[in-house]
Amino acid sequence: MFAAEECTQDRFLDGRLLVAQPRNGYRAAMDPVLLAAACGAAPGQSVLELGCGAGVASLCLGQRITGLRQVGLELQPEYADLARRNATANGIALEVFEGDLAHMPGPLRGMSFDHVIANPPYFAPQSGTAAADAGRERAQREATPLADWVRAGYKRLHPGGWLTLIQNADRLADMLAALSQGGGSITVLPIAPRAGRPAGRVVVSARKLGKGPLRLLAPFVLHAKAAHGADVEDLTEAAQAVLRHGAPLPLVP
Amino acid sequence: MFAAEECTQDRFLDGRLLVAQPRNGYRAAMDPVLLAAACGAAPGQSVLELGCGAGVASLCLGQRITGLRQVGLELQPEYADLARRNATANGIALEVFEGDLAHMPGPLRGMSFDHVIANPPYFAPQSGTAAADAGRERAQREATPLADWVRAGYKRLHPGGWLTLIQNADRLADMLAALSQGGGSITVLPIAPRAGRPAGRVVVSARKLGKGPLRLLAPFVLHAKAAHGADVEDLTEAAQAVLRHGAPLPLVP
Repeated sequence: MFAAEECTQDRFLDGRLLVAQPRNGYRAAMDPVLLAAACGAAPGQSVLELGCGAGVASLCLGQRITGLRQVGLELQPEYADLARRNATANGIALEVFEGDLAHMPGPLRGMSFDHVIANPPYFAPQSGTAAADAGRERAQREATPLADWVRAGYKRLHPGGWLTLIQNADRLADMLAALSQGGGSITVLPIAPRAGRPAGRVVVSARKLGKGPLRLLAPFVLHAKAAHGADVEDLTEAAQAVLRHGAPLPLVP
Repeated sequence: MFAAEECTQDRFLDGRLLVAQPRNGYRAAMDPVLLAAACGAAPGQSVLELGCGAGVASLCLGQRITGLRQVGLELQPEYADLARRNATANGIALEVFEGDLAHMPGPLRGMSFDHVIANPPYFAPQSGTAAADAGRERAQREATPLADWVRAGYKRLHPGGWLTLIQNADRLADMLAALSQGGGSITVLPIAPRAGRPAGRVVVSARKLGKGPLRLLAPFVLHAKAAHGADVEDLTEAAQAVLRHGAPLPLVP
């Protein structure tokens, strides 16, 4: 369990959420906020987050939409604990199970959901150098193959339910291959740092048993200026709406 | 063989090319021009076009780059014949073989190339209604699976050679799955009708035996105005450069 002094209190959605995160562990930034914004859940529906970490994506979603039934699954016990505490501190109902998505905990096996969301690790097993912090390494490096995340997600969805993921853009082929097994009606939203630049991330949604055509949307652009000024706010208006004001980022028309 | 009166003479690249196309058959528009623009061939290199039809893509490429060795493969004899006549009429050297890419003609089996380009049929086998014209139907509807086009392309490339394709955006998952078998270093260029709109087509390049990461580029936007005015030129400057002035559309940095 993380002690209070091991954590920082980080503001998300312009301070609507205050989330404890380990100072030296995996620290969420924009990606879980974008993921939550892209999930088209409606009040009364159920949402499962696979690999919820400290809970940022689920909490952003719960902040935007009231009356959801939200469940998280997290492998690392100290992050699961943090997610529970963060949910309580922000007054959002989030039930967190500890366990491995490839060996779903017993209670979760009997449940199915309207939506599943996930922000799987970005780095392939043998790439780059390992993070010094073991928890961050676990959150960032793929131990469970991406295809298993997708398979676990589809398994926990009602027929016709939606799976929404955020990933590094260079994993697009792997994502689409996995999502095409057991689902369809795929929408790809490229997330670009600036207009005219290649996508850094992709948000992808797919429908369990969906048969609709794939759609490749126009990119969502984060920064407005050509160069990054450290002390100047340069988020685009659309990015400000999502990242600060909690606006949705609709993938499905 | 198409008689002269069955054909129209169509201008491409602002009249730099004059290409005979069957009045009632498959008629190329922007797509082969974009495909040619995206092929990064250099003088002295060899290029094979799979399914070259009346030859528009190969002729656009030969118009932009001199000193290429260009070869086309076309299943339908009357289109192969038209491609040969169009090449001669435009003073571009293009050797056209008649045959099926899934059963490569003998002479082609002994050849390999620096680049392979193709504009495979867009419509899946059982989708929509058939075109009234048999030649157009053949050009537009997938009889040979997309994966076979990709496999045939890789087979005809030198190691490290580039395969460049244009396809409907809704086939992106199929394209990437096929291109990941035997190649990599994939670049995806979305082609959008207007800014902010989903991609209509994708141009995708991949390197035989390539190991580089996938890149998803910013979209190439065709039209500038919000609504299409029939008698107003509304191509973006970038689209004018490519479609009228034969500028390249570089996928590889």
